[in-house]
Amino acid sequence: MSGVQAPLNPGHGREDAARKLAEYMHAHIPLVAQMQVRVTAAGASGLRLTAPLAPNINHEQSAFGGSLASLMTLACWGYLWLLLEGQQGLHIVVKDAQLDYLKPVTGMLDARCAPPDAAELQKFLTTLARRGKARIGLKAATLQDGAVAARYSGSFAVYRS
Amino acid sequence: MSGVQAPLNPGHGREDAARKLAEYMHAHIPLVAQMQVRVTAAGASGLRLTAPLAPNINHEQSAFGGSLASLMTLACWGYLWLLLEGQQGLHIVVKDAQLDYLKPVTGMLDARCAPPDAAELQKFLTTLARRGKARIGLKAATLQDGAVAARYSGSFAVYRS
Repeated sequence: MSGVQAPLNPGHGREDAARKLAEYMHAHIPLVAQMQVRVTAAGASGLRLTAPLAPNINHEQSAFGGSLASLMTLACWGYLWLLLEGQQGLHIVVKDAQLDYLKPVTGMLDARCAPPDAAELQKFLTTLARRGKARIGLKAATLQDGAVAARYSGSFAVYRS
Repeated sequence: MSGVQAPLNPGHGREDAARKLAEYMHAHIPLVAQMQVRVTAAGASGLRLTAPLAPNINHEQSAFGGSLASLMTLACWGYLWLLLEGQQGLHIVVKDAQLDYLKPVTGMLDARCAPPDAAELQKFLTTLARRGKARIGLKAATLQDGAVAARYSGSFAVYRS
């Protein structure tokens, strides 16, 4: 399984980028394959990752908190990966995270990382270009029936090797 | 694989309890089996869960942040499961969590949930007995070479169905 679906917002090379991200995650992070993560949309509105409930279920017949944490971490990390794609030798790692589990997720896991504020993003890119390292805060949410079922806020460090 | 190792601190039925917890997790949470989680110690000093690096590795050749989040969530959840074992009809769910990834984990994932403060624990048990529901905050850490590599602080809700 490639883990790739057609992006909802295909654009200039976005379908290719989404496919590359899915292939990279599946090749390098075994849990991504076990969770059956898919890149469902990648574009100006951010990154959307989904995963079926079955491999991510818990003892309450809802999504395991660790799977939700993993998927939202991947959504933010993947957003940065796509943003910086093509820049060689960059490392992207999560530094801290805050999670709020608001209600049980009883169907497909559907996580979205929205782009940060434009000024924040510009500052991050400028710092990265100047110093070879920078940090940025990103937010993600897991949606269910149009409502937020879980919230994620993480800080990510990017550095050049 | 049963996912059970002999507890480091065996005591009155603790080995049995650790075995039951491992079997329960492996039977009800598929990701626990994929992560190859083991109950390494269960006793008065809390709960220790371990998992090999290989199924939990990431693109940086260190432990995936989602695996660390999952293992520390399970350590806290499992601590409560053992604490309340034998009480029928109880549900234990995570409500929120704060994670700090302090340094890369490049070997076995080793997570420990320490018992909370005795007064806090007593208050939680009293509230649960009286109202059929209660919340408690728990902390876990992932250790590597004697140092803390990741910290977890979570809030858990327990309720009677």
